[in-house]
Amino acid sequence: MTTTKPRRTGGRAARRALRAAPLETAKRPVQGGLSGGTLQVLSRPDLEAIHRAALHALEHIGLADAPRSGIDAMCAAGARLGDDARLRFPAALIEDMLARPRKDLVLHGRDRCNDLEPGGQRVYYGTGGAAVHVVDVEAGTYRESTAQDLQDAARIADTLDNIHFFQRPMVARDIIDNFEMDLNTVYACCSGTTKHIGTSISEPGFAPGIVSFLHMVAGSEDKWRARPFVSCSNCFVVPPMKFATESCETLEYCVRAGMPVLLLSAGQAGATAPASLAGAIVQAVAECLAGVFYIDAISPGHPFIFGTWPFVSDLRTGAMSGGSGEQALLNAGCAQMHQFYGFPGSAAAGFSDAKLPDMQAGWEQATSAVMAGLAGLNMVYEAAGMHASLLGFCHESLILADDMIGQTLRCVRGIEVNDETLALDALAEVCLHGPGHYLGQAQTLELMETEYVYPQFADRSSPREWDENGRPDLIARASLRKRKILAEPSAAQFDPALDGALRDRFPIRLPP
Amino acid sequence: MTTTKPRRTGGRAARRALRAAPLETAKRPVQGGLSGGTLQVLSRPDLEAIHRAALHALEHIGLADAPRSGIDAMCAAGARLGDDARLRFPAALIEDMLARPRKDLVLHGRDRCNDLEPGGQRVYYGTGGAAVHVVDVEAGTYRESTAQDLQDAARIADTLDNIHFFQRPMVARDIIDNFEMDLNTVYACCSGTTKHIGTSISEPGFAPGIVSFLHMVAGSEDKWRARPFVSCSNCFVVPPMKFATESCETLEYCVRAGMPVLLLSAGQAGATAPASLAGAIVQAVAECLAGVFYIDAISPGHPFIFGTWPFVSDLRTGAMSGGSGEQALLNAGCAQMHQFYGFPGSAAAGFSDAKLPDMQAGWEQATSAVMAGLAGLNMVYEAAGMHASLLGFCHESLILADDMIGQTLRCVRGIEVNDETLALDALAEVCLHGPGHYLGQAQTLELMETEYVYPQFADRSSPREWDENGRPDLIARASLRKRKILAEPSAAQFDPALDGALRDRFPIRLPP
Repeated sequence: MTTTKPRRTGGRAARRALRAAPLETAKRPVQGGLSGGTLQVLSRPDLEAIHRAALHALEHIGLADAPRSGIDAMCAAGARLGDDARLRFPAALIEDMLARPRKDLVLHGRDRCNDLEPGGQRVYYGTGGAAVHVVDVEAGTYRESTAQDLQDAARIADTLDNIHFFQRPMVARDIIDNFEMDLNTVYACCSGTTKHIGTSISEPGFAPGIVSFLHMVAGSEDKWRARPFVSCSNCFVVPPMKFATESCETLEYCVRAGMPVLLLSAGQAGATAPASLAGAIVQAVAECLAGVFYIDAISPGHPFIFGTWPFVSDLRTGAMSGGSGEQALLNAGCAQMHQFYGFPGSAAAGFSDAKLPDMQAGWEQATSAVMAGLAGLNMVYEAAGMHASLLGFCHESLILADDMIGQTLRCVRGIEVNDETLALDALAEVCLHGPGHYLGQAQTLELMETEYVYPQFADRSSPREWDENGRPDLIARASLRKRKILAEPSAAQFDPALDGALRDRFPIRLPP
Repeated sequence: MTTTKPRRTGGRAARRALRAAPLETAKRPVQGGLSGGTLQVLSRPDLEAIHRAALHALEHIGLADAPRSGIDAMCAAGARLGDDARLRFPAALIEDMLARPRKDLVLHGRDRCNDLEPGGQRVYYGTGGAAVHVVDVEAGTYRESTAQDLQDAARIADTLDNIHFFQRPMVARDIIDNFEMDLNTVYACCSGTTKHIGTSISEPGFAPGIVSFLHMVAGSEDKWRARPFVSCSNCFVVPPMKFATESCETLEYCVRAGMPVLLLSAGQAGATAPASLAGAIVQAVAECLAGVFYIDAISPGHPFIFGTWPFVSDLRTGAMSGGSGEQALLNAGCAQMHQFYGFPGSAAAGFSDAKLPDMQAGWEQATSAVMAGLAGLNMVYEAAGMHASLLGFCHESLILADDMIGQTLRCVRGIEVNDETLALDALAEVCLHGPGHYLGQAQTLELMETEYVYPQFADRSSPREWDENGRPDLIARASLRKRKILAEPSAAQFDPALDGALRDRFPIRLPP
């Protein structure tokens, strides 16, 4: 078909200038916390069937390998330890737990303006993962990821409007000692961004040191407990249906230390979870319900994120295929289960199997990112910069994800239908009395500010303009932006006195 | 988080071999005609409000510029011509039209196995558009598109499982005479693929020649009328709310010649349609309802596709921004309106503003393609190979779209929930008695055939495997496939006797 090309009007320069001015956050067409829910891949009977199956699994199969402390706490709360050493949870017990009233979750940022309120169908996007490689886009190769890469990623994320939180996306492989790695990971994140941070703790014995570090960053233990700005991503289960003994001990420590916990069940459909998508969700839900029961048994009402993160296998090879349609469906279905329970929930979406930030990366990331948002997934982890089925991180891709997620959030926001937007007055005026087009209409000028999202990197020029501009390369432009961000001082960096005090007490490997 | 890497099992080679064998169409995990509808960006009251607004616009604003023949036919059917020369349609008249029973639409392929049955929430993807450039991916440049490019695209599309129809995506700019251009366009399409074809006709005077050509290809007029394998994409309106006088004359001819008509309203929100998304849908719906009324007035029950194709402007510049979230929402909303009326419908989705098949192209194409499918859009045009806001076509991108759409269709298919997929038996067996993983389960082996989609180009290798394979480039691999397809004889090509007869009678510019 042929599109009608509007004539260039005198108002064009004015519109361009108007739109170049920054908008207040509240007036931005998109922001974190928009409500999704227009996508429902599961019907109400489907949701109930999955719930019933999860209850059945908890009552009849149960979970093995809880630590002694966990067994004691959960049995005291009504769970039953079988002769086969599996903890089982009578359905009525779980139903009681689900009926308990809970406070709304707030995930704090070190800067208050970055606080998140996941729950309902509200959607936030951020990073996440444990990539062991960084993409060098200029060479088109992979290299091992470092603590500096991590801090760089945090600093970049800090500047991006559509990245709402920063979970550690990479492993600092240049730091051999595991405690030092955990510590420097937290340092790299906290000194790079004032957004809410997620991290993990490799061994239970490392938790006290990390928590002390966070007390110092907060100013005191009380200040930390008032606004805990770091949550602990905790793989408390080894699917299928086994507690991860050591991680559970870390979990217990974090709960007592006032740290919100991401209860993470990361089965892989066809390998460590059933190959059927529904079955993979059942298992993840059962495992996470056990996790909530566990937390409630230690500290009722302690804040958690319900982390059903089922992944997908390529069944030919057993390898992960995170960019698949199956993965996008799993996440959307899980989001509905979170809403079914009224729990703030999360999954991993928006990552790719592609090694480089290429077309495959774009289509894979966008498919699962937009479906997660439309389904109202609260916390979309791994949604920026993730490649190679979570094994690689790319800073340029993180920068471009800001555009992709901006577009995604526009889709989440949806279509407003009311007398004004139905636009019958504008239609009548333009067609019956007006110029025959809508370019100069008051409504058009108003809506261009508040309804339309303008990407920074997505190129909308005509082929002629693009050619005249020297055919700019998307990735090269993102690289340039990366260098610019990293050349400037970070708004999140610690003040020198605090930084010095931290370095006096802890083995910080990153330069000040 | 850390993903659990399954150990390599002896069954791996067997699984790989099993999956390498071709599957019968009916057993494929995805195919054209899967039902969407899980995405509903408009509520029932929203749909009714848009419907009422469209009726209001038709009754009170009406459409200007119908040709004399159209005015006569529509007035005879109850429309009213105002003093301002606008045709208006009383709401009751449109309601009567909507209540009329209609036959299900079949869009025929030249090969019967390619027939489509758009309607309900069944989804088909194909090409479309009027790009004037072709992307040379090796040079990274644009050049003018030719009739040969068009035939090449048809031949490529013929081989791709997830491209269900082939609407002319490019203009043959090497053919100066407009009739010859239209004719050679149809020749290029028909000789390249046996899938259903869409084309346009530039002037009413060209229609008889094109139809004669199609009679010859079909074997006779009767054979053509029994299985019309080409539909006419007809821009019968110039938005806002004006008939396109000449195109309407072409429309009338096509209807009488038994050619299905794509009733195409392509307003641009903020330029030739209201800037509000709801308003843009209202106008497109009103215009297409007028189109249906028009067709019914000439030939009641003649097959049509309801073509609400509102596009989006970047309001800073007036340029199209087809890769935007706003565009994806418009298409999804339109799909719901088609279902509201029970009309087979279409829109344009899955195209990008990016000039090259890069990451931007991927995320833009996937966002609107998947949302169109999830919304149950019947005919998704422009869904493969389209770049530069519809100004550029890329053969490599068309090839990669087969993977992207395969993934999209997997999302459309959704999650089956039943006793088998809930997998409680497998869960109990694996956890209580079994190996602790699902790799060798009978269910896993069965589902890998029927539930999982395996892309051809999307790379799922590990960074190490990828490096060992020489870090293959996505676009270079697609180029190689393109050359391979075009080096082989086409399954769709005309038999030499027919081809000779066509050349005797018509100025065919493509080589035999």
